[in-house]
Amino acid sequence: MEFVKGITPKDTVELSQLLEGGWEGRPAKVEGTIHTVRDMGDVAFVVLRRRDGLLQCVVEKNSSEIDVKSLREESAVVVEGQVRSEKRAPQGIELLAEGIRVLSTPEEPVPLAVSKWKMNTSLEARLDKRPVALRNIRERAKFKIQEGLVRGFRDFLYKQGFTEIHTPKISAKGAEGGSNMFRMDYFHRPAVLAQSPQFYKQMMVGVFGRVFETGPVFRAEKHNTKRHLNEYTSLDFEMGFIEGFEEIMAMETGFLQYTMSLLREKYEKELKITGAVLPVTDKIPAVRFDEAKEMVQKKYDRRMKNPFDLEPEEEVLISRLFKEEYGADFVFVTHYPSKKRPFYAMDDPADPRYTLSFDLLFRGMEITTGGQRIHDYRALTDKIKARGMSEEGMEQYLDTFKYGMPPHGGLGIGLERLTMKLLDEDNVRETTLFPRDLGRLEP
Amino acid sequence: MEFVKGITPKDTVELSQLLEGGWEGRPAKVEGTIHTVRDMGDVAFVVLRRRDGLLQCVVEKNSSEIDVKSLREESAVVVEGQVRSEKRAPQGIELLAEGIRVLSTPEEPVPLAVSKWKMNTSLEARLDKRPVALRNIRERAKFKIQEGLVRGFRDFLYKQGFTEIHTPKISAKGAEGGSNMFRMDYFHRPAVLAQSPQFYKQMMVGVFGRVFETGPVFRAEKHNTKRHLNEYTSLDFEMGFIEGFEEIMAMETGFLQYTMSLLREKYEKELKITGAVLPVTDKIPAVRFDEAKEMVQKKYDRRMKNPFDLEPEEEVLISRLFKEEYGADFVFVTHYPSKKRPFYAMDDPADPRYTLSFDLLFRGMEITTGGQRIHDYRALTDKIKARGMSEEGMEQYLDTFKYGMPPHGGLGIGLERLTMKLLDEDNVRETTLFPRDLGRLEP
Repeated sequence: MEFVKGITPKDTVELSQLLEGGWEGRPAKVEGTIHTVRDMGDVAFVVLRRRDGLLQCVVEKNSSEIDVKSLREESAVVVEGQVRSEKRAPQGIELLAEGIRVLSTPEEPVPLAVSKWKMNTSLEARLDKRPVALRNIRERAKFKIQEGLVRGFRDFLYKQGFTEIHTPKISAKGAEGGSNMFRMDYFHRPAVLAQSPQFYKQMMVGVFGRVFETGPVFRAEKHNTKRHLNEYTSLDFEMGFIEGFEEIMAMETGFLQYTMSLLREKYEKELKITGAVLPVTDKIPAVRFDEAKEMVQKKYDRRMKNPFDLEPEEEVLISRLFKEEYGADFVFVTHYPSKKRPFYAMDDPADPRYTLSFDLLFRGMEITTGGQRIHDYRALTDKIKARGMSEEGMEQYLDTFKYGMPPHGGLGIGLERLTMKLLDEDNVRETTLFPRDLGRLEP
Repeated sequence: MEFVKGITPKDTVELSQLLEGGWEGRPAKVEGTIHTVRDMGDVAFVVLRRRDGLLQCVVEKNSSEIDVKSLREESAVVVEGQVRSEKRAPQGIELLAEGIRVLSTPEEPVPLAVSKWKMNTSLEARLDKRPVALRNIRERAKFKIQEGLVRGFRDFLYKQGFTEIHTPKISAKGAEGGSNMFRMDYFHRPAVLAQSPQFYKQMMVGVFGRVFETGPVFRAEKHNTKRHLNEYTSLDFEMGFIEGFEEIMAMETGFLQYTMSLLREKYEKELKITGAVLPVTDKIPAVRFDEAKEMVQKKYDRRMKNPFDLEPEEEVLISRLFKEEYGADFVFVTHYPSKKRPFYAMDDPADPRYTLSFDLLFRGMEITTGGQRIHDYRALTDKIKARGMSEEGMEQYLDTFKYGMPPHGGLGIGLERLTMKLLDEDNVRETTLFPRDLGRLEP
């Protein structure tokens, strides 16, 4: 019998350690995957791909017993050698290889040019071979930045006194009903997959005051567009004791400010690889829905088709207008028409045709819907009645209000869309690890 | 048009701010929910429940215009008054109330004694009224501790160079197949809900080297026991370039050490409320499966029924033995029989009837399954053949190995079970926010 005492240092070195300096002329052992082999005759360059970047290893054939011809790209190896500086190498240092131990060998060469800077392969082809395509340095960097976004969301909210929750994805009835729910059989009972943690996070405001969740949501929408997914990661929060929905917008702005700093600080390498331009977050313009529509009509001489909703093209034009006139990357559009918002949205007492709610547009696309919710039991049940809806299946949700709830509001952010606009991609599938859409259920 | 500039200070004070001291005799405005009202005649005590704790407010009826009779428990309020120290108050301070503004009023009194220290209500009754029952101070503290566990998992792994991933929960075929998958219709195609992110996290080892995910998993098992859930939160990681499964156990031990420190540092209040006793994590014994069975037989004079599996009672006895003899709260049981492990588990070259895998037992219950995986394409497909399994639906998974994979391994931890044993609860539903089991699909 033995005891496990926690992590102990390995005899291999991290790239980040090597880059700290002081290794010149010293021996090092580095593990990684062979990204490329370039055999130049007397000398060969073997580039290792590691989780923390690329490292060039040099094999001087005359003085080494390494059989370069036997090395395969995508083999996992451990290289032993001497560290030396080399300005032309990707990191300014290289390893003069003295020995290469092969840990695994691929059966076949990769079917995509993953070691190229740009793969020049269609999105469809890359999605079909996703687990391999992501080995490309630029492809994988997108998802490291995505990590930073969700990490920033949580870290910021922990600091603001929020509690993280995990709500069920299988339920008897969905938050907002409707036809866009995936249905399933749960031990011979009908069930649905959560399209949002909305009801749960509101109920938990009565418990923790401020809550958040980062998790999957499911939408059975029959859209096949560049901006829709049928499963995505939603960053949700809900907070009590608000004086107005402006506090929700302020909290989201705080999150964006915090997270862009985090990216700047801890994801510098990936920002460089992807060429991402971080957005302006110090002040975000907020404009009423009806005013925004009018401004766009006037400036771009555009006819309004539907006064109660924003078309995707209008979102693009509103963003363009605020970029041109205020240098803004984000715009809050407030006071959406009540007709277009769910029953739990709080109507504006000053004009109940509109709600105390907002969307956040980022470089032409909606990435957040949020607002103040109704917290009074009577007001909520009255609105349900007025809409001709049934209370069936919402008993537990409504009971929570019957037993008292503070004024509250919240929002949901689509993680893949936020990543997409941050990286200036034109299809949300580019920033989804394994997208699910009308046609795609694998890999 | 206005600009949103981020979060700004509120005119109300946090309890944590008051507890920092220096408020004696000063005015303060505090928001919260009325937890209890105790009317003593000349004086009344109104206890506020806030996300950061309880605060006692005192109403001296002669000198105040507050109508105590009109106050309702579970009302959201803002209390204005003067701070003074009071040793008998829960936090050592209280607020001499000068005014109470009511923000919301419940329609009916709560159906459970949520303001009592112990509710004395059955688990079933508490689950039926979960959104209200969780308003109890001890109930909600469990989930704050649960937050600490998942937060510690992520923070520790970020530091260890892991990348966080979000893998799809709807798929064409599941990781390990079998009858315990929930089935659903995905736009007229058969689909299943993920019982584990196993295949995805392995595929991502080829991309990021080290990955983790914290998210829901779904098991259609027809068990209705105190330790099973049909939906739970799984803490998963997978790491490449390992020399053996011992590195996985070391990483898990490191996570436990880190997280217990985090709880001690940031969740002290909740540890006190729940009375949780933090486990010993500085060294965790690791014992072979066959040896553990023998030790238990010998010490407790127990007959072995099944040499290839551990019964729940054996898990309890192994934990008891290591507690009695080594003071251990955790035990790694290693080298599980190959028959009982999935096809991707790596067999022990020294004796292929056993695998290079482990379970972690915590106070008598399995909370983790992990081990080294097969990374060689041929070895993997040979084992699939030898088991008489089909490769159908696993093409993408197997392709990943065809194109090269480093030696790797990983584990999955059941968050609700880990919380359960940490808090010494006897039913996993006690530490699940909204449990899903054979009978329960709501709330």
